[in-house]
Formats: sequence, structure tokens, C-alpha cells
Amino acid sequence: MRLGHRPTRDKRITTHVCLVARSFGASAVHIAGVRDDSLQASIKKVSDTWGGPFSIDFLPNPIRFVKDWKSKGGQIAHLTMYGTRLKDAIQRIGSDGDLLVVVGGEKVPPFYYIAADINVAVGSQPHSEVAALALFLDRITCGEWENMAFTDAKLRIVPTERGKTVEQLRFKKKDI
Amino acid sequence: MRLGHRPTRDKRITTHVCLVARSFGASAVHIAGVRDDSLQASIKKVSDTWGGPFSIDFLPNPIRFVKDWKSKGGQIAHLTMYGTRLKDAIQRIGSDGDLLVVVGGEKVPPFYYIAADINVAVGSQPHSEVAALALFLDRITCGEWENMAFTDAKLRIVPTERGKTVEQLRFKKKDI
Repeated sequence: MRLGHRPTRDKRITTHVCLVARSFGASAVHIAGVRDDSLQASIKKVSDTWGGPFSIDFLPNPIRFVKDWKSKGGQIAHLTMYGTRLKDAIQRIGSDGDLLVVVGGEKVPPFYYIAADINVAVGSQPHSEVAALALFLDRITCGEWENMAFTDAKLRIVPTERGKTVEQLRFKKKDI
Repeated sequence: MRLGHRPTRDKRITTHVCLVARSFGASAVHIAGVRDDSLQASIKKVSDTWGGPFSIDFLPNPIRFVKDWKSKGGQIAHLTMYGTRLKDAIQRIGSDGDLLVVVGGEKVPPFYYIAADINVAVGSQPHSEVAALALFLDRITCGEWENMAFTDAKLRIVPTERGKTVEQLRFKKKDI
């Protein structure tokens, strides 16, 4: 869950948040903030090309969404530089139920600190919600993102010492 | 080393790159691209408040800089989604000499792929140079950034379950 998206100022950071979420194992990003169709289109294009499943949506009522999540037994981890140290926090997150990871936003309302099952500090220094999300997902998946497969990809990269090797996995009808 | 900085389009992403570099153990960021005094000022402000040592500078001749780095025995790791898998790459980076970590930029010239001792893929999916840098520095420091101390900080966060706890370590002369 990405808080406080403003299309003009935040487009690139929110795009990076979404791409990181997809690359490191999240199934969706739920965005609180101003609706942004061009962001949605650009993320859809990435998923269509590189595989999924992954989706983004905009929340009409983010607080209701969080309350519903909790009432259904889901866990919530809020990433903030003020929270519990990552290595301590990660041991306290259970593997039962869905996990919602909340990232700010310039000013995060106190509601999210209180609603979260755990406030997690990926370092207690000012840096980046993009980096915080990547490291949190790395720890919570025990680094398994490196072996993760994406379905229905058109393109796949083959790791290469130097240069670029890209496999084309699917063709457009008009090319066949 | 951050390639291809354009002040208008890249300010926030380059800021995140610099803050991540500082938070996860780099001593400096060398920027190739258009000089940007406001970026330099905002990073200096963070280091003055939260501690250092950390600096950024703009390179008049990035290619010369890379050649000089190599001639002095420094290593170079270039982060790219096309490179060698992170877990394989990390074992091949020695601990001797200084390490330059290169991150793009939209289009990275072939020179950097060739000049690098190793091209490292922090995942072979499109995501973010901010996230790639964070995960690379995490692996290369074996997660030790979580215990890293910053010198001459004015403020320090005390990890807290809920809310914000900030210690003031130094005072301005006028406050005493």
C-alpha cells in the first residue's frame, strides 16, 4: 500500500515502488492518493511484457481498506524510519494470512502507526521508501525473489557477463 | 557513481540514490550529468543533521574518472538488470581496494558494461536503481549497515514500537 500519491510530484517514485513490489514478490499495490491513469497504464505495460500476476489500483477510502484488511485477519507492516529494527521486526511477522506492507508518503497520519501490527525501520536513517520496500520484501521472502518465475511474460532476460541477452517468449499474432 | 542525472526529471530519484548510498555504507556519490546545486545542498543538509562522513560531487569527465579508478587498482561493479545474478556476483567481488558501484541512467553507454569488473543483476526484472543499490550494498556489507554509526550527527532516531523518538545530540550555540 502506497500512501499519499500525487501524480505530478510522485510519479517516478510511485512507479519505482510498484516495480519493486512486483519484482520482489508482492501481488498488487494499492495506492492512496490522487488517481493516475498514466501510472496504471505504465505498470500494466511492464506486467504485460515481463509477466505477472501483478496489478495496481487506487483506493477510494484507504482507512476503510486498512480496517477491512485487519477484520479479515490480515497482518499489516508499516515501513518507517522510526520503527522497530528490521532484523527484530522480521522475526515477529507470522506466516499466516495476507500481509499488507504500508509505505509513505511525506507525512504519514498517526492512524497507520496505530493500525499497523508492526512499525518496521529499514534503517533509522532518512533514505527511500523504494529501498525500504525492496529490503523488507527481500527479508520476508528470504531472498527467494531471485528464483521467482513470472507467468505469461513476453520477454525474459538471460543473465549475462557483459551486454544484454533477452529471450522473446511470445509473439504477436501479426508476426506469425 | 550515478549516471545521466538531469536536474528536472531525475532530482527525486537521484536524491533517493544518494540517501540510500549514505544509509547503507557508501562514503560518497559521484554524479555524471548536469550539475545540480540544489541536490548537493539537500544532501549536505541531511549529512549535517544525521551525520557522516558522506559527500556528493559532479564529474566533469566521467569516463576519465572510471579509467583513473581502474588504474589505481579500484574495482567496479555496474548494476544492470542484464548482468550476472546478485548471489553469484557478490562472491566474485574481492575485499581489496576501493569499490565503485555504478548505477544508470536511462541509457547506459556500452563503455560502462565493458569497463566494469562485473555487471550485476539485482533481479533480472525492470525495477529501480534505488532498490538495486540498496540490495547490493546490503549484500556487500553482509547487512552490517544496521549497526553502522554516523559521526557528528545532530539527531539520532531511537527505534520505537509506535510513534517517533528522536534524540538531539548536539545543540546550536544560540540554544545554549
